[in-house]
Amino acid sequence: MVNVQTLKGFRDIPPEEALKRGRVVSLLKSVFKSYGFSPLETPTLEYAELLEGKYGTEGEKLIYKFKDRGGREAALRYDLTVPLARYIAENKGKIIFPFKRYQIGSCFRAEKPQAGRYREFTQIDVDTVGVDSALADAEILAVLATCLQLLGVSKFEVRINDRTIFQDLSPAAIRILDKMDKIGRTEVEKELKKAGFNQETLKKIENRQPTPRLKEIFTALESFGVDKNFYRFDPFLARGLDYYTGMIYEITVPGTSGSLSGGGRYDNLIGVFSGEKIPAVGGSFGLDRLTEFVPAETLREIPFKPQVLVTVFSKELLPPTIELFDQLQGTGVEAELYLDPDAKLDKQLKYADRKGIPFVVILGPQDRQDQKVTLKNLRDGTQQSVGVELLSKILSAK
Amino acid sequence: MVNVQTLKGFRDIPPEEALKRGRVVSLLKSVFKSYGFSPLETPTLEYAELLEGKYGTEGEKLIYKFKDRGGREAALRYDLTVPLARYIAENKGKIIFPFKRYQIGSCFRAEKPQAGRYREFTQIDVDTVGVDSALADAEILAVLATCLQLLGVSKFEVRINDRTIFQDLSPAAIRILDKMDKIGRTEVEKELKKAGFNQETLKKIENRQPTPRLKEIFTALESFGVDKNFYRFDPFLARGLDYYTGMIYEITVPGTSGSLSGGGRYDNLIGVFSGEKIPAVGGSFGLDRLTEFVPAETLREIPFKPQVLVTVFSKELLPPTIELFDQLQGTGVEAELYLDPDAKLDKQLKYADRKGIPFVVILGPQDRQDQKVTLKNLRDGTQQSVGVELLSKILSAK
Repeated sequence: MVNVQTLKGFRDIPPEEALKRGRVVSLLKSVFKSYGFSPLETPTLEYAELLEGKYGTEGEKLIYKFKDRGGREAALRYDLTVPLARYIAENKGKIIFPFKRYQIGSCFRAEKPQAGRYREFTQIDVDTVGVDSALADAEILAVLATCLQLLGVSKFEVRINDRTIFQDLSPAAIRILDKMDKIGRTEVEKELKKAGFNQETLKKIENRQPTPRLKEIFTALESFGVDKNFYRFDPFLARGLDYYTGMIYEITVPGTSGSLSGGGRYDNLIGVFSGEKIPAVGGSFGLDRLTEFVPAETLREIPFKPQVLVTVFSKELLPPTIELFDQLQGTGVEAELYLDPDAKLDKQLKYADRKGIPFVVILGPQDRQDQKVTLKNLRDGTQQSVGVELLSKILSAK
Repeated sequence: MVNVQTLKGFRDIPPEEALKRGRVVSLLKSVFKSYGFSPLETPTLEYAELLEGKYGTEGEKLIYKFKDRGGREAALRYDLTVPLARYIAENKGKIIFPFKRYQIGSCFRAEKPQAGRYREFTQIDVDTVGVDSALADAEILAVLATCLQLLGVSKFEVRINDRTIFQDLSPAAIRILDKMDKIGRTEVEKELKKAGFNQETLKKIENRQPTPRLKEIFTALESFGVDKNFYRFDPFLARGLDYYTGMIYEITVPGTSGSLSGGGRYDNLIGVFSGEKIPAVGGSFGLDRLTEFVPAETLREIPFKPQVLVTVFSKELLPPTIELFDQLQGTGVEAELYLDPDAKLDKQLKYADRKGIPFVVILGPQDRQDQKVTLKNLRDGTQQSVGVELLSKILSAK
């Protein structure tokens, strides 16, 4: 018998979770659209060459690469930013700038599997391309903050820095600084020393003030109505990726490890492909982690299961039963028709109960004669005889 | 410079098209949910072994396969049915049957690239697992017909057959019959003859009547309210895939080639993985082809672009301008803020015009003094001075 497991590092997303994620995604989409961002979809596979040299030595090792049947070196996308840069370079003649797009899709990294971390994950990106103003930087942050607030994530912190602050530091030193969150200040100090930086480096950074550009961004954030408690200047924030050139940020939830969102300005990346500098700024959420932080109240309004099971009393009554279901379904009630007309009514009621469907409708011979149906509430065991019109009204109101 | 093209056979989906597809998908999801189907997401990659031997000799050649970094033979999913069967087999102990799920996701086939055909495409599947009734078969067809009607596809034909009708035919003969649509009756007759079938074969099939099972399905379809003009028995319909065991169908649009949807009952596929027979029936749409047939009227209600551009009169007026945008955006108006505060107003108006944004809002020094804003209609060139509250009302009503 063949292997019936998911591939190592991959997983299925069962209905309850898929519904939650769908709810989060549709809310994010509506926020993005309300700020004038449009969807873009790039393919899952790209030429491997495109992705190489973009994610650092460690990242590079995690790219899924293979030769396709035509002998081309292909790769599964590692993020949504590099494909966006490729799209811009390939289509720059027909794009009207600023180009504001969002994209939601699977990315792939061959990381060591660990709890809650998968090799395929859904990334949510929002980017503004073709304009280098502080206003564009601030807008990205405002969009992300709005998303979190609408999702009901009540505690979060946007830490903001400017990569140009590190102009006098080597990429090696930046990578050490980037570990501040993970290993703490003392360890960072040690590592810096080991790497040959003098003791003053850390202090010097600590005393830095926001750049004029960051000040502009902060002013704009105020105008966007983002609460000051939600963001702050963090001179230590480094961000690992090499391609950032200006504002960088990270969103964390106090008291938890890891980040909810990260991003920044990358004014040189598109130029690598297009030969012409096209500025860009963006940020992204990881859907898994984001969904973890969305409180139950936000998701409560989603009907996770049908509200009513339409049972089949007997094979003879099947046609009017289907019609009844069709009517209910047509009025927008989340209904389910029991699909085995030979099953005993008792079995059907048990099915509704196990599945957590709160209401059951029965159309028996007597109901039919009375031109009514029986509505059973499985939660309290009560039942009533009602006409079909009243039935849809009762169920729509639930 | 690196290659800035999409991989051969792949493509980007630009915003206008992505918006259309999004609209189609969200309508389909709401229909599926209204019939009691829930979303399931299986991964993009599976063990290659799982997919092998499922799609026939020709199909097998099109599977994207490669060794992952751990030396495992992985494959990109070829369809959503085999992964569903794997999911059921892997989780049968915890699933409550009938299990009704829909899934929307990318599938991959290394086909020869041709106009309008891509190696990555979005498949939309809806399946009922764990029940073998005619009612379940009919419900799948009713769901698909409802989708098409709600999408405004006014002409379509569901051709239905029963695989058991072919019990006395070899798979080779079935494959020839399957070409009826493509090569026509005369050619099919020739090929059958060449393959050693006697001349009576075709006539015998032609005279066949719907099986009792099909009759049951037709009766249920009537009760589901599916218009009789939309479906018919087609004794020649064969469907290429080997795994169908009962009802099979195909949806076509008269006067066009190729099919919009296809599927059927496959009672033995899950057993291959689970060792235990679990009946199933399902159907699928290809999103590309489906979207082609959705008329413009259905999509008209989607705002493809922001309705209003909030311009920046001057850097001094940036804070109140952002606040104005924030207010508009908060009331649900699809607005866009011009992101370069140094640009001349004229340039900003031209941008709105090129992008097809119909309204422009200006907050100049005089407007500010009057506590009003100027609303310019770019379509007819008129402009008016209005308060912010009235402004959102005007724009919401557009």
